[in-house]
Amino acid sequence: MKTLLSLILILLCPPLLAVEEWRTPDNENLVYMQLATGTVVIELAPFMAPSHVTQFKALVKEGFYDGLDFYRVIDGFVAQGGDVSEQKTSQHNKLLKAEFSRPTPKTSTFTTVQKPDFMAAETGFLHGFAAGRDEQNQQEWLLHCPGTLAMARSNEADSASSDFYIVIGQATRHLDRNMSSFGRVIYGMPAIQALQRAEINNVSGVIEEPSKRSKIQWFKLANDVPANKQLNIQVQNEKSEAVSQRLASGRTLDSEFFHFKGNGNLDVCYYQLKSRLNN
Amino acid sequence: MKTLLSLILILLCPPLLAVEEWRTPDNENLVYMQLATGTVVIELAPFMAPSHVTQFKALVKEGFYDGLDFYRVIDGFVAQGGDVSEQKTSQHNKLLKAEFSRPTPKTSTFTTVQKPDFMAAETGFLHGFAAGRDEQNQQEWLLHCPGTLAMARSNEADSASSDFYIVIGQATRHLDRNMSSFGRVIYGMPAIQALQRAEINNVSGVIEEPSKRSKIQWFKLANDVPANKQLNIQVQNEKSEAVSQRLASGRTLDSEFFHFKGNGNLDVCYYQLKSRLNN
Repeated sequence: MKTLLSLILILLCPPLLAVEEWRTPDNENLVYMQLATGTVVIELAPFMAPSHVTQFKALVKEGFYDGLDFYRVIDGFVAQGGDVSEQKTSQHNKLLKAEFSRPTPKTSTFTTVQKPDFMAAETGFLHGFAAGRDEQNQQEWLLHCPGTLAMARSNEADSASSDFYIVIGQATRHLDRNMSSFGRVIYGMPAIQALQRAEINNVSGVIEEPSKRSKIQWFKLANDVPANKQLNIQVQNEKSEAVSQRLASGRTLDSEFFHFKGNGNLDVCYYQLKSRLNN
Repeated sequence: MKTLLSLILILLCPPLLAVEEWRTPDNENLVYMQLATGTVVIELAPFMAPSHVTQFKALVKEGFYDGLDFYRVIDGFVAQGGDVSEQKTSQHNKLLKAEFSRPTPKTSTFTTVQKPDFMAAETGFLHGFAAGRDEQNQQEWLLHCPGTLAMARSNEADSASSDFYIVIGQATRHLDRNMSSFGRVIYGMPAIQALQRAEINNVSGVIEEPSKRSKIQWFKLANDVPANKQLNIQVQNEKSEAVSQRLASGRTLDSEFFHFKGNGNLDVCYYQLKSRLNN
């Protein structure tokens, strides 16, 4: 009887438990950006920053960003784009309430990677994004890793509107819980990395000469991109066996390539979920 | 009398203790690399990896790398260059003994930034480089931060010779104490970030089609670069007050811009020493 039960479990459980390595993000949450250096695709995070995502999509839809540029680009830090002139008007360009974090839902799907983390109580993945969680204060948030998209602001928490930045260097983790992160680049980081930087002695990073700034040719909602121009991008699912194995192997460095085996800690910003084109 | 003593101390001590914010690296330790995307300057670390530096300089001097290319470039990871064909001969292209770390000298000048660090007993700076230290095992080593230069190898520790890589993404800290790091880019990271990457689905990152690889036009020892083409690059001195203040401010996030003040931990790879052109 026990053998029979085991046999039934073996036959039934793997297919029931298996999570596919690759997921296809919902087109509703994707925006395309065209640069001279290539096409960039960003996945938005309405679960974390619904107001930022709604406003950003409205601005994209009306073409607000088209022809604007990356006016503050500091190598190893961020590429900031938008309307540096503050001349462009839009009914959608409103001040946003900060969405730095959210209360952890009762049924959080957070996948732990590192606990405690160096900069947070816990880090891991949330709906495909590198995220932090503090169970004591019942908060979760998106991390500032390479490729993270967040809205720029002045000193006041509720002062963001349309200017945005993308992290292009070592994770700017001091911005976690200080900025509203609302997406991440899932395709085309090389096009971002090829953006024109400010000169090395330019501490503010603001590129004063407009002709030296890289232009945003256009932004489009994925659903407004012609079907034959849409990319079939897939992103790793953090609940899949392939991702678990990659993390486990990072913890132990068990390949013979590694002579020093580390201390088992993982930097989730290094182990971000990978993308592929499913052609 | 006490007042007089204080006055004397005030008058004498600041100039005696002051360390200039900027130092000019020794030309002996600099190499220039010319890419289609710009000029790159690397500071070498003979104090950590003397054999690697000696061999690399000999290879540079004889023009070994000129016309070779970056044949393995993975966005967010490393750009690896050298002779993928293994056809190029040189009397200097010899197998090197690993120089992953060195015994901490009795009079180490290590400047602590973070202790304990997430991935090491201690991290900080050593002669201008982000470094780790383990006082128990009396070892210190260079970290894999963005811009770090190290020699590639196969599984065996002593198998590096001439192919090298530069870290272009989130710090690859699992390579610390596993690879011989022997320098870092102090000028021209944007030129490196603009290198042609492997396609997104190319897991190995090796760019098979030579015409799609970015070329190394040439490498030169700084002393072989014509004087009027040399750049007057300076790097922050980790013992200076300016660097101390930047680190202190990173620990407390005391500007009113920051609403969440963090936990005081610092990622030394984010706080790498800055460069400038002294024109």
